[in-house]
Amino acid sequence: MGLFSKDIKTMDDLFVHTLKDIYYAENQIAKSLPGMIEKATDAGLKQGFQTHLAETKNHIQRLEQVFKLHGIKVEGVNCPAIDGILEEAEEIAGEVDDKAVLDAALIAAAQAVEHYEMTRYGTLIAWAKQLGRPDCAALLEQNLKEEKATDMKLTGMAERGINAKAA
Amino acid sequence: MGLFSKDIKTMDDLFVHTLKDIYYAENQIAKSLPGMIEKATDAGLKQGFQTHLAETKNHIQRLEQVFKLHGIKVEGVNCPAIDGILEEAEEIAGEVDDKAVLDAALIAAAQAVEHYEMTRYGTLIAWAKQLGRPDCAALLEQNLKEEKATDMKLTGMAERGINAKAA
Repeated sequence: MGLFSKDIKTMDDLFVHTLKDIYYAENQIAKSLPGMIEKATDAGLKQGFQTHLAETKNHIQRLEQVFKLHGIKVEGVNCPAIDGILEEAEEIAGEVDDKAVLDAALIAAAQAVEHYEMTRYGTLIAWAKQLGRPDCAALLEQNLKEEKATDMKLTGMAERGINAKAA
Repeated sequence: MGLFSKDIKTMDDLFVHTLKDIYYAENQIAKSLPGMIEKATDAGLKQGFQTHLAETKNHIQRLEQVFKLHGIKVEGVNCPAIDGILEEAEEIAGEVDDKAVLDAALIAAAQAVEHYEMTRYGTLIAWAKQLGRPDCAALLEQNLKEEKATDMKLTGMAERGINAKAA
């Protein structure tokens, strides 16, 4: 991105930019999940992160389909938001000195990631529909649905045991 | 935070750390909203950001009450997540070369901020309840309720005109 040029002139440019943003983000998340799987102690949480890693790889493939449908090159752009969210996740994980408390912290970190993805997919779906691309919107909706389901599963794990163990 | 020390030993430590994180975040958001108010063109959006700035100042005061109830000093900790989200918001706003498209981009940026706050408040409320602090949870729930309402208002503004004007 050129910091001194105004490269986004149309809604389509904004859609493409944000698509590249979430593409970068999903790839960074795929890189960071193995570390979270390793750190998690609770067997259900570890398994949940493993399942989400497989889903994340599918999300990347679906995004690649959206790039192709839209006739643009598959590429990411730097996304300071996800970099910051993942940096904070690593930082907090490094500061927790108790396995049960660490599991609770990992859930919170993962939910911050999910919420970032949910907001970006929500926006992209609305824009795709506005731009007359229901085909792109449908693929993005599949990703959003899985992010929401993951977030709810994480809430369930926190409330049905992990928070109580940590407290 | 000490990067080489493990300062978070209990669930209460984790709660306090995350409270300081959202306190820092709300203060950064309060600093960034005037810029968004200035950049917004749509009168409803401008007004929406103004209302949210007033709410954000209330959220900061409610958080200060939570610090006091919990018997701890009011202070923030660095929060790379909100720094990244706000950095990305500024970056994108600087790249859009059309007022209607900029309004759509500002809504997306603001919703990323709201989602970060929603996930942190959701976590803090669950932890406060687990720690036997329904008094703290009740204050945090008031903030969460307003963040959710703001997010829904932004979706409504996007879908009832701003996206169509931008496209």
